[in-house]
Amino acid sequence: MNVTLADPADATLTLWDSFTPIKSPEDYIESLRGRHMTVYFLGERIEEPVDHPVIRPSINALAETYRLAIERPEIAVAQSPVTGEPVNRFLHIPGDAQDLVLKAEMQRELGRRTGTCFQRCVGMDALGSLHSVTYDMDQECSTDYHQRFLAFLGQVQKRNLVVAGAMTDPKGDRSKAPHEQSDPDLFLHVTQRTDEGIYVTGAKMHQTGCVNSHWIIFMPTVRLSENDKDYAVVGAIPAHAPGLTYIYGRQSCDTRILDGGNIDAGNAQFSGQEAMMIFDNVFVPYAHVFMDGEHAYAASLVERFTSYHRASYVCKTGLGDVLVGAAATAADYNGVEGASHIRDKLVEMTYLNETIYASAKASAYQASELPSGAWISDAMLANICKHNVTRFPYEIARLAQDIAGGLLVTMPSEKDLENEETGGLVRKFLMGRDGIDSVDRMKILRLIENMTIGRNAVGYLTESLHGAGSPQAQRILISRLSKLEDKKTLAKRLAGVD
Amino acid sequence: MNVTLADPADATLTLWDSFTPIKSPEDYIESLRGRHMTVYFLGERIEEPVDHPVIRPSINALAETYRLAIERPEIAVAQSPVTGEPVNRFLHIPGDAQDLVLKAEMQRELGRRTGTCFQRCVGMDALGSLHSVTYDMDQECSTDYHQRFLAFLGQVQKRNLVVAGAMTDPKGDRSKAPHEQSDPDLFLHVTQRTDEGIYVTGAKMHQTGCVNSHWIIFMPTVRLSENDKDYAVVGAIPAHAPGLTYIYGRQSCDTRILDGGNIDAGNAQFSGQEAMMIFDNVFVPYAHVFMDGEHAYAASLVERFTSYHRASYVCKTGLGDVLVGAAATAADYNGVEGASHIRDKLVEMTYLNETIYASAKASAYQASELPSGAWISDAMLANICKHNVTRFPYEIARLAQDIAGGLLVTMPSEKDLENEETGGLVRKFLMGRDGIDSVDRMKILRLIENMTIGRNAVGYLTESLHGAGSPQAQRILISRLSKLEDKKTLAKRLAGVD
Amino acid sequence: MNVTLADPADATLTLWDSFTPIKSPEDYIESLRGRHMTVYFLGERIEEPVDHPVIRPSINALAETYRLAIERPEIAVAQSPVTGEPVNRFLHIPGDAQDLVLKAEMQRELGRRTGTCFQRCVGMDALGSLHSVTYDMDQECSTDYHQRFLAFLGQVQKRNLVVAGAMTDPKGDRSKAPHEQSDPDLFLHVTQRTDEGIYVTGAKMHQTGCVNSHWIIFMPTVRLSENDKDYAVVGAIPAHAPGLTYIYGRQSCDTRILDGGNIDAGNAQFSGQEAMMIFDNVFVPYAHVFMDGEHAYAASLVERFTSYHRASYVCKTGLGDVLVGAAATAADYNGVEGASHIRDKLVEMTYLNETIYASAKASAYQASELPSGAWISDAMLANICKHNVTRFPYEIARLAQDIAGGLLVTMPSEKDLENEETGGLVRKFLMGRDGIDSVDRMKILRLIENMTIGRNAVGYLTESLHGAGSPQAQRILISRLSKLEDKKTLAKRLAGVD
Amino acid sequence: MNVTLADPADATLTLWDSFTPIKSPEDYIESLRGRHMTVYFLGERIEEPVDHPVIRPSINALAETYRLAIERPEIAVAQSPVTGEPVNRFLHIPGDAQDLVLKAEMQRELGRRTGTCFQRCVGMDALGSLHSVTYDMDQECSTDYHQRFLAFLGQVQKRNLVVAGAMTDPKGDRSKAPHEQSDPDLFLHVTQRTDEGIYVTGAKMHQTGCVNSHWIIFMPTVRLSENDKDYAVVGAIPAHAPGLTYIYGRQSCDTRILDGGNIDAGNAQFSGQEAMMIFDNVFVPYAHVFMDGEHAYAASLVERFTSYHRASYVCKTGLGDVLVGAAATAADYNGVEGASHIRDKLVEMTYLNETIYASAKASAYQASELPSGAWISDAMLANICKHNVTRFPYEIARLAQDIAGGLLVTMPSEKDLENEETGGLVRKFLMGRDGIDSVDRMKILRLIENMTIGRNAVGYLTESLHGAGSPQAQRILISRLSKLEDKKTLAKRLAGVD
Repeated sequence: MNVTLADPADATLTLWDSFTPIKSPEDYIESLRGRHMTVYFLGERIEEPVDHPVIRPSINALAETYRLAIERPEIAVAQSPVTGEPVNRFLHIPGDAQDLVLKAEMQRELGRRTGTCFQRCVGMDALGSLHSVTYDMDQECSTDYHQRFLAFLGQVQKRNLVVAGAMTDPKGDRSKAPHEQSDPDLFLHVTQRTDEGIYVTGAKMHQTGCVNSHWIIFMPTVRLSENDKDYAVVGAIPAHAPGLTYIYGRQSCDTRILDGGNIDAGNAQFSGQEAMMIFDNVFVPYAHVFMDGEHAYAASLVERFTSYHRASYVCKTGLGDVLVGAAATAADYNGVEGASHIRDKLVEMTYLNETIYASAKASAYQASELPSGAWISDAMLANICKHNVTRFPYEIARLAQDIAGGLLVTMPSEKDLENEETGGLVRKFLMGRDGIDSVDRMKILRLIENMTIGRNAVGYLTESLHGAGSPQAQRILISRLSKLEDKKTLAKRLAGVD
Repeated sequence: MNVTLADPADATLTLWDSFTPIKSPEDYIESLRGRHMTVYFLGERIEEPVDHPVIRPSINALAETYRLAIERPEIAVAQSPVTGEPVNRFLHIPGDAQDLVLKAEMQRELGRRTGTCFQRCVGMDALGSLHSVTYDMDQECSTDYHQRFLAFLGQVQKRNLVVAGAMTDPKGDRSKAPHEQSDPDLFLHVTQRTDEGIYVTGAKMHQTGCVNSHWIIFMPTVRLSENDKDYAVVGAIPAHAPGLTYIYGRQSCDTRILDGGNIDAGNAQFSGQEAMMIFDNVFVPYAHVFMDGEHAYAASLVERFTSYHRASYVCKTGLGDVLVGAAATAADYNGVEGASHIRDKLVEMTYLNETIYASAKASAYQASELPSGAWISDAMLANICKHNVTRFPYEIARLAQDIAGGLLVTMPSEKDLENEETGGLVRKFLMGRDGIDSVDRMKILRLIENMTIGRNAVGYLTESLHGAGSPQAQRILISRLSKLEDKKTLAKRLAGVD
Repeated sequence: MNVTLADPADATLTLWDSFTPIKSPEDYIESLRGRHMTVYFLGERIEEPVDHPVIRPSINALAETYRLAIERPEIAVAQSPVTGEPVNRFLHIPGDAQDLVLKAEMQRELGRRTGTCFQRCVGMDALGSLHSVTYDMDQECSTDYHQRFLAFLGQVQKRNLVVAGAMTDPKGDRSKAPHEQSDPDLFLHVTQRTDEGIYVTGAKMHQTGCVNSHWIIFMPTVRLSENDKDYAVVGAIPAHAPGLTYIYGRQSCDTRILDGGNIDAGNAQFSGQEAMMIFDNVFVPYAHVFMDGEHAYAASLVERFTSYHRASYVCKTGLGDVLVGAAATAADYNGVEGASHIRDKLVEMTYLNETIYASAKASAYQASELPSGAWISDAMLANICKHNVTRFPYEIARLAQDIAGGLLVTMPSEKDLENEETGGLVRKFLMGRDGIDSVDRMKILRLIENMTIGRNAVGYLTESLHGAGSPQAQRILISRLSKLEDKKTLAKRLAGVD
Repeated sequence: MNVTLADPADATLTLWDSFTPIKSPEDYIESLRGRHMTVYFLGERIEEPVDHPVIRPSINALAETYRLAIERPEIAVAQSPVTGEPVNRFLHIPGDAQDLVLKAEMQRELGRRTGTCFQRCVGMDALGSLHSVTYDMDQECSTDYHQRFLAFLGQVQKRNLVVAGAMTDPKGDRSKAPHEQSDPDLFLHVTQRTDEGIYVTGAKMHQTGCVNSHWIIFMPTVRLSENDKDYAVVGAIPAHAPGLTYIYGRQSCDTRILDGGNIDAGNAQFSGQEAMMIFDNVFVPYAHVFMDGEHAYAASLVERFTSYHRASYVCKTGLGDVLVGAAATAADYNGVEGASHIRDKLVEMTYLNETIYASAKASAYQASELPSGAWISDAMLANICKHNVTRFPYEIARLAQDIAGGLLVTMPSEKDLENEETGGLVRKFLMGRDGIDSVDRMKILRLIENMTIGRNAVGYLTESLHGAGSPQAQRILISRLSKLEDKKTLAKRLAGVD
């Protein structure tokens, strides 16, 4: 991989100096404070997201990516050819297949530790795809996007920052191109160009971890034509850039944490995050513009991003591990862990979970090199991985509920446990097999609720379906990559058709 | 069906007089007030459940059973041989197969109207099973339970009351019989017998609609032996009987209604209800005791109840209709209703839903008569119905989420719509195809959230799995009813085995 | 139902006299002899199909429809309003829902007795649909088709004959209408009209039981337009009419019966039959023409036929019973019948099989009356039944193979059992649990082979997929019948959309 | 990997000289002639299997493994550390993960070329497992099995011979250990030991490719105890050793090739092979005995063999490629390739096929080294691969039949095409879209029949289910490898259980 140092004349250097290098999960959490971002949740402006009880678990989940780099550097740290230093793998451009293999291991491990979406993959995969697409543009269009990109990358690597990727536009009428929409803002676009940079307006939907990030890279989400040139724009902005508004998305059971206590939330410590980001003439200096009008490269950017990102859904196997473990624990507490139908359901859950894992790992091992020197997951197998993810977690969740029993959705609250009239009754009647504390039984059931019908079901189920493209998007790719004519030739030869 | 009028010497007649006959949904709601029941929710005693915003939607859902009797008497009203008057079908003992067919139609229609569990089926099916089991006991044990039962039935029919059935004991260690449990209260049992009646102690879990009922019939939940005689007890008590405590179960997103507004709840008007009921030496006069010690009849009571009740899950096809309609509407709003993969998914959802319906209806048409004159659903087909219900709603829900899109779980709240800074942004960027109001799009997505990962997913998914017995319970019955030896004979004959 | 006796002036009466009334399975088999039909199989003209060892099992299967009428008249015989006499139910027009219920029972029972396709349902369902369509045409077009049809029906009923239905044209290029095909014969059509009758040319594919029938009713297979008038033709002809050529279809393992012995065939006695029928200017007197040019009625004929016929696939539940029994026997012989995973697989097979049964029965019970007085199965539920049949037998077959073990496809032949060098070795080493004869074990495995990968897999699997329309045909109907707008209204109401 | 040359004093050297080194597929076929083996098929002794039309296609399939080594050495040839020469990969001990990756590629490619089982994998995987197990025995028991094994391996490598693995005993009563069976021969065992070697008696079932092999390695198939010492025996014998009898297994449609022509067979050139092998006091010199009494190593031999062999089922993805291609061709011929439901089914087939592939490849990439220096596939992922193979080919086959249409099982024979009366009719009426030859359409449909309900369905379906262990065998391994306690710890930590 060719590496170029950051341009010392970069006008953004002052800005960079405002980001102190992060060394620990605690540093990370501290780094998010005092940014005065415009964040709304439930109709109110949130002054300090870090301290908001509904938002905080999502910050905790992301912070685990820092902890893992300390505790398990062999999977979570890589050597950067850009800086020559070790960097968090979330900021690393895959330089060989092994990098993608380790990325998958890291993602499963973080899923196991958090039981939710830790939000840092979109940015990682955006960096991966931009490395090669900026390179290709420079080769073919005499631009200097790749150097700008490497400079930017070096800066975030040195400071160990969180970069989010922002891709999904609102899209409005799905049957129309960006320039055909009645409202031009339904796709993010350039509104003005000055000597210093560009201004962009629009919105990005379902932005995973955006409020918890330091930088946002925005990119187009669809194939673009000549008429859509102003929509062919890629750039990086600080998450607290002027002109940005965040409207935090509601999640199932999001406010349960506000009821007090730690049990009812199921997983009180960790959650995912998605928000809607509105861009109102946000300024981007040219040093941070990585595409501006090269509409022909939007398609390859999207396609490369999906090759990386559809394999990233291997993280759900980590959540699957948690759910298998929770179901097994629930069965144990009920005294039925040895029942043959229970054991068989645990096997089925494991089988489905490992099938996802296998497809992700295979897509990593079969990675290939792009002209820029970046390596990319095998496209067919990455799509197979994601397609498995759109189905199997739902069945795993159903089986977990089957094993858990109906109490999962009819159980008294933690407050009823604390109430002196009812606490004893709840403890008495929720007893499982001898030696098991009723409260432990409640905690495990709440975790299963959390992951199958509560807050983290958002990430385990619905985002498994729609993240990185809905099932039909994978089917289109699988169809395109299926080499049907070759297969027809095989069949004709064996059938004796000339 | 032989009918006997209520005994004029019944000591409970004064009690009955306290129940005013109910003529309308409004009467019903009014009838629930002022009962001073001991109900806890989120650690607090609820003085008047009728006015509690989290509880009220469940009352509204049950009230629809009264409305339907007025609007669609051809399915929701039957002629009672006990009183000689028309009665709400929920209080009617099936007198022929057509009664069970109409019951199924009524249940689907109520599912369509409420999109949730309307809570009145357990009681209906308890009445159905007790009719024949009390009759059998009287024939064989010279008891007079059947007359007592008919007298009770006549009273609730005349007053048009809600009767709940209470079956599921806490069970403790599932590998032990009731009398073997370390805590005898883990199954409901008789603690004392006096000249006037009996006293019972224990608890019943997952009690559907109990707080919204006038009367509760408690019954054993497992096959019992000689040693479990004190657990072989059936009786009817007013829902506000002294000694009863209710602890209201938490549901996914239960408190969302407290955030204000009507959109975020998804289905603001209707919900289900389950609570834990604790019995602390509750008195039951003999007139309302329908089994006391006849342990040998516990098994047939449980089995008959499941034959009725597993077919009752046809109600979920009504919810399925709502979800198919919601998904089709979401697709329409997104401008993709005509896409072939969308149409195909709607067909798949419909196919699964109608397969459930077919099995329920077949179990009704193939009903048979019991000695008491009551008719009962075909046991095999009722179990087939329920077993389909443990699988298909999950797949229907997955497909609904697929069609809906990820916005379902990342959408801003209703309050953000009301906030003047963000309201316009939300409206602008959540636009679908031209001519569609963004707010309507949000409402439909919230309904899909409600039914697949929110409050009514409790009823549509998890209770579909566990209500009336978990999947394994059906598999045991299917195995028992499968006439394997007959089938082996068929195979041997065709194979030429002597 | 209005009944008119046969017209005494019918020019076809002499022909009818050549058919002796059939009273027994033996009579039936005898009645097929000496017809000098032009039947080809494996490139040779078959002089007497009745004596051909490959064809005979299909005749035996059809003969069981006669046996059942004798042994189980309560399901297999009906009272004909046309003749006023009892008739075989295969010749009966359903006069109420109960007739359709009994039809389904008869079909399952015949499946249980034969383990294959008994071939008489297409004709039965053709008669059912023509009753009402001829009636409708007469009402609206002043034709006399219905009287002709009733006269024909009376004759076949009196003589107890087998009537086959011939529907599926070769179709050529599926994107073109009949009149647009490069070869006009790719759909059956009228080539000439004389004073006595019409002449038709073309072919019908996959004709179930045609060689084993006495009469053939041909009908259009697609919706037709004004330009296709010559294709809008329905008529009845003797199976041995001049101008007819039959080319017998190959089936998996069809010639295994020629290897000698009875074991390897798996089910030596019974099989299905399909052949290609070529019509070369076949004459049809007007008395037997039931449509000639009324193209607008082709669609309703096809649609009514499918409502009847898609429910007829309930017969596969009879085959399912055999396969469940065979798998249970194989497990018993292997000494593993009690293993929990074996029992669970038998339950799964039963559950799938009964789900099919439930949908068929429900479609019968919910039948409705047509203007002619004929009753017809519920269209939605009949399509649900058939759609289940396109999936579940494949899974049942897979589970049967799972239980059976791999020996199913690696087992020595019956001749090796007879050979004196190898016979003892085979017996010695194919021993299962003590007390089981190795040869019995072989027989049961051959039956499972027969039904899952051999001759009767044709009927149990592939015809379950394609008979009465391929899966996509059902999906189109399910979509059309799904009342999507009503369901959208339900959803909007609950979501609060105006 | 430590390599030792063959012992020059090996008493078997004369025997080895009788095997001429094989250089081509033609050499291989020639090498099978004149061996005077005792082979029975359909009750007759087959003098020369090479010339038997039913057996020959299986020899052709195996011969392709030689052709591939010439045409695609990069996947089918490896460098042997034993001989220092290039060897066919089927004779190579995996020396790193890449060897296992290339093995999988080779297997898929051979599946694509033959559309059937090419029979050489069992021997390859037996060699792989014996390498390490003999090593372990020598280390721990002071035996010299490993040196013997390497000497044997060097000989077969130098001569490029086919080695089959023989594992599955008849087993008799599955609930009893070998020594408990009423007939001791139901598991292969040592009957005598002399100074020169041992004698073994028993049988091996379902022996893939045995008649087509030069050498047979027999091994135990179950975990053994002290009492089963005589059953703990591994050795190598020539396929034509005295005392061996082969009874060739019947396959669906096996004799269709005897009807003449090439079309009806579907795949006239290639098939699989399984036979029953009876051992009657077969002598094995000590040089070729690799275990004799070390019962404790039977379990690890079986387990290692399954780790290799369950991943070998990746070959079925090659067959899947053929079937996808055949279905696409059939759709093309019918003029419906562009229909959305057809395209969607092709995607589903591809998705399922690639999911199998991914799991096999992942198990190869994640291989690990054993003490002997041999590398072995990841056990969990190999079991996942095989478990997928027990399900997905059945669904792929169902979808192929769906796309193909019912003609697949009702089509006239090739002989009817040749007959001058019927040939023209068949051609005329089996026409698809313009420009397609009816005969080509027939050929493709016969191929689909062959793979889904005919001769090669044996390999594609039933052997996919049972080869290398039935589904339950994988479930037991998956359960054992699932690290449930670790997963419970994850869940407890997130739930807040101490």
